[in-house]
Amino acid sequence: MIETPYLLFLGDAPDQLAAKVAQGIKDWRPENSVGQFRMQGCGADLGLTDMTLAEAKAAGAKTLVIGVANRGGFISPEWRAVMVEALEMGYDIASGLHNLLRDEGELTAASQTHGGTLHDVRVPSVGYPIASGVKRSGKRVLAVGTDCSVGKMYTALAMDAEMNKRGMKSTFRATGQTGILITGHGVPLDAVIADFMAGSVEYLTPDNDADHWDHIEGQGSLFHASYSGVTMALIHGGQPDALILAHEPTRTHMRGLPDYSLPTLEQLRDMALPLAQVVNPACVVAGISVNTQHFSEDEALAYLAEVEARMGIPAVDPFRQGAGRLVDSLNTI
Amino acid sequence: MIETPYLLFLGDAPDQLAAKVAQGIKDWRPENSVGQFRMQGCGADLGLTDMTLAEAKAAGAKTLVIGVANRGGFISPEWRAVMVEALEMGYDIASGLHNLLRDEGELTAASQTHGGTLHDVRVPSVGYPIASGVKRSGKRVLAVGTDCSVGKMYTALAMDAEMNKRGMKSTFRATGQTGILITGHGVPLDAVIADFMAGSVEYLTPDNDADHWDHIEGQGSLFHASYSGVTMALIHGGQPDALILAHEPTRTHMRGLPDYSLPTLEQLRDMALPLAQVVNPACVVAGISVNTQHFSEDEALAYLAEVEARMGIPAVDPFRQGAGRLVDSLNTI
Repeated sequence: MIETPYLLFLGDAPDQLAAKVAQGIKDWRPENSVGQFRMQGCGADLGLTDMTLAEAKAAGAKTLVIGVANRGGFISPEWRAVMVEALEMGYDIASGLHNLLRDEGELTAASQTHGGTLHDVRVPSVGYPIASGVKRSGKRVLAVGTDCSVGKMYTALAMDAEMNKRGMKSTFRATGQTGILITGHGVPLDAVIADFMAGSVEYLTPDNDADHWDHIEGQGSLFHASYSGVTMALIHGGQPDALILAHEPTRTHMRGLPDYSLPTLEQLRDMALPLAQVVNPACVVAGISVNTQHFSEDEALAYLAEVEARMGIPAVDPFRQGAGRLVDSLNTI
Repeated sequence: MIETPYLLFLGDAPDQLAAKVAQGIKDWRPENSVGQFRMQGCGADLGLTDMTLAEAKAAGAKTLVIGVANRGGFISPEWRAVMVEALEMGYDIASGLHNLLRDEGELTAASQTHGGTLHDVRVPSVGYPIASGVKRSGKRVLAVGTDCSVGKMYTALAMDAEMNKRGMKSTFRATGQTGILITGHGVPLDAVIADFMAGSVEYLTPDNDADHWDHIEGQGSLFHASYSGVTMALIHGGQPDALILAHEPTRTHMRGLPDYSLPTLEQLRDMALPLAQVVNPACVVAGISVNTQHFSEDEALAYLAEVEARMGIPAVDPFRQGAGRLVDSLNTI
């Protein structure tokens, strides 16, 4: 559990894209941040108030969150100096960088002296159980993709936001670094030991009120040779009541696998649903989420209409249209 | 790579079942052991020559292999004394126990002083890559089960033994502790980090001669909520040319999951084959391996005949009948 509110560290991010973790936090949990911290040469701007460490501390900030990718794969002396100062001032620090905070001697020393916690959200901090498969109360929805990085996290966050807007009981359940930083907790599933993957998802999505929805962040794809085992553990650990099929229609091959073409939405449905029904026989495919960012508005709407007519379930781009029709569909379950 | 030949440590095993790892080594790689080491009160006997550490050393033994489960979940002072003496004499030690050798101060000290290696085969010793999905040369067969512990390892070892007998090119590829101790190398798949599971299987089964068969040891089951992700990674990392369906027909529920009934062989086939064809479109289901240990000979033969007629592919119990007909079927691919 990462303490909020945050000060978002953008460092010397060369452009907006490099600060996409911070952007995600600002977009989805604006109430979690008091401001942004930028260094000389920073080319990113979230439109939040620029603050020094001291100003943000005075405004209540508890945790300095590294919201930017580091260049060159190491934590630069300039970044480190800011982090040490933050620890000296009583901040915790949270990071999803490949380079772990705990591997930096200066940071662990300052953390020990001043009592601040170093959250490396890429690394599990819990000893997860082996999955029991026991049916849990409450409802769960999981987006499964024709490929990796097609908008599964965005879809889950958008459905969660829509349910919150409607006053429904709803929680986004993070399974990746960005999601964990956005919400302050979750399971870094890709770093969990094989035997405990499904158990970690059960741990993440416990018994809940009968009318509460968990929106479980998807990972990988059943059709992606590198990561399908992670997807499988999500399906069986998550016990979804509903699947959302996620797709990006302009991909020419599976991400990082040039020899592999994408499956059709029908193939994804026919593979994922029987697997989900192993643990939850009542599971249904409730909708389709299409990332149409490479289409014009007209192309997008035509594509969505065609898919919806073909598959017989709502097909939307939650970025263009919101997730209202997906939530409507979940409400019929 | 564990150096052979072994001296098999049976310790104070209360009965034969407690020494099943040693039994597996003796059954499948008799040439790998020079003898057995038994302590007072040992109720197991592999029928190998009883040897002292010195006698086995003189006979060429390189590694003391812990072939027995430990009682109470700790390494007893009596065991430890034998292990320290073995290290002093120049042995390596290999173990698949939950308690790691490396966590025992006396053993690491003796290992450092005398140069012997401590092999904890439950723990990966390699930094595995992320799977590339690139098609590899050579042929691979994987047993997938309706449940865990239905005979997948036995089936793979029996097919490998049959191919060796016929002079075919063949390698058993271990993915679990017992398999690794039997053959001296492999990947402890259930302990690999999620993101690297499929990559570790690719690493284990590299390019090979076009007429070479890898017999990949299966793990878990696509229908087992706790471990299905591991099975999925085996299917996509292994790129099997052939699947063998493995089944134990008297199970009343999935192992450890009292609420889950077993799938039918047809359900297993229809789930596993399309998933395997994602990475190897030519993959086929080549045969069925049934563990009929709870049937009489007549019951077993009747059951196998019924399954074979129903499914249209060879159905055998390799323990009763050998794996000849499964290998015949692989030879048609």
